[in-house]
Amino acid sequence: MKLELINKTAILLFLLAGAMFLSAAGSETRSLAAPRMNGGKPLLQTLKERQSIREYVPDVLSDQQLSDLLWAAFGMNRPEIDHRTAPSAQNTQDVDIYVVMAQGVFLYEAKPHQLKKVSDRDLRPLTSGQPFAKIAPVQLVFVSDYARMPKVSPGLRDLYAGVDTGCIVQNVYLFCASENLASVVHELDRDPLAKALELRPDQHIVVAQTVGYAKK
Amino acid sequence: MKLELINKTAILLFLLAGAMFLSAAGSETRSLAAPRMNGGKPLLQTLKERQSIREYVPDVLSDQQLSDLLWAAFGMNRPEIDHRTAPSAQNTQDVDIYVVMAQGVFLYEAKPHQLKKVSDRDLRPLTSGQPFAKIAPVQLVFVSDYARMPKVSPGLRDLYAGVDTGCIVQNVYLFCASENLASVVHELDRDPLAKALELRPDQHIVVAQTVGYAKK
Repeated sequence: MKLELINKTAILLFLLAGAMFLSAAGSETRSLAAPRMNGGKPLLQTLKERQSIREYVPDVLSDQQLSDLLWAAFGMNRPEIDHRTAPSAQNTQDVDIYVVMAQGVFLYEAKPHQLKKVSDRDLRPLTSGQPFAKIAPVQLVFVSDYARMPKVSPGLRDLYAGVDTGCIVQNVYLFCASENLASVVHELDRDPLAKALELRPDQHIVVAQTVGYAKK
Repeated sequence: MKLELINKTAILLFLLAGAMFLSAAGSETRSLAAPRMNGGKPLLQTLKERQSIREYVPDVLSDQQLSDLLWAAFGMNRPEIDHRTAPSAQNTQDVDIYVVMAQGVFLYEAKPHQLKKVSDRDLRPLTSGQPFAKIAPVQLVFVSDYARMPKVSPGLRDLYAGVDTGCIVQNVYLFCASENLASVVHELDRDPLAKALELRPDQHIVVAQTVGYAKK
């Protein structure tokens, strides 16, 4: 009887260990520092200074800056009701932010405010044909998941994916003006990047946005 | 000889007066106060406070607030190079803001920073089926002129009209958070309003946005 119990326990422990190993290997997360939710330049000053910069140096953002950037872009500003810094059609929160950096690609998860690694590759060259794509440390790729918009008329989904993304884009621009960072929203060749990110057909790349330090 | 000259001068003066009369009758402009371009709450605070409000009182904005609102939304922040507080695809500046109020509809002209009257009618009820449309003092209707986007691939124009509009929408949201005003971006029935505004087929209503004071 004792041996049978030991065997069953051993089997259970092996299964548990196996399950933990599989789940850990499938979703490597990178925690983000608690974001700042106060301070920054006065709003009208950030609007005055809002601009697009196209020449960058390779200097990277600090962990705190990256955390603050993502919260400003599309973080939870009313976590008690799951609401964000930018609106979305019917509150579908259809836009995902893929953070493309030298060390890989990370999906921003707003509720836990963390990054989930989705690729080890440096896919920045796929985010634009422009020189800045290889130099600037961060490319934000905005992907609208049309599967989250079942009640939006199909003929309006491009428009709403655009509006929802534009709100986030502007948050990034104003944050950069506030933090003396540089940014530019830009067109890109969507198909090769969608393939590299293994997006579903429902997931539509809207635009990309560069963030970094301006070349003086 | 003298009589001929007097006749010619008289005819010229009549023609000039006629032309002036016709141009004045066709485009009544309403000047705006010089906009504030500094101050406001710190940016991160406006992001923290960004939200949608759906219940309004009829209180109107002051002339200064209306001027500041429109500059924040899509005014010239770098007038020396004709650039604005929000970006646009290929800098096409495709979006026009129609300001719909009780006293009529006005098109915002960013370069002179003024309003051009396009209708005497109170078209607010056409901007939404929601109760707030009849109560809130200002409806901003964002119209993308696709004729300004000839180099944008036709299949991408909805997306870009959306992104360009979303950037402006977010400026309005953050301005409202900064000024303790209320706002909500909302869907609308586009055809009747396009007809009432006498838009060309190339001009596409993207979304509308309410601005006013929240009901306590």
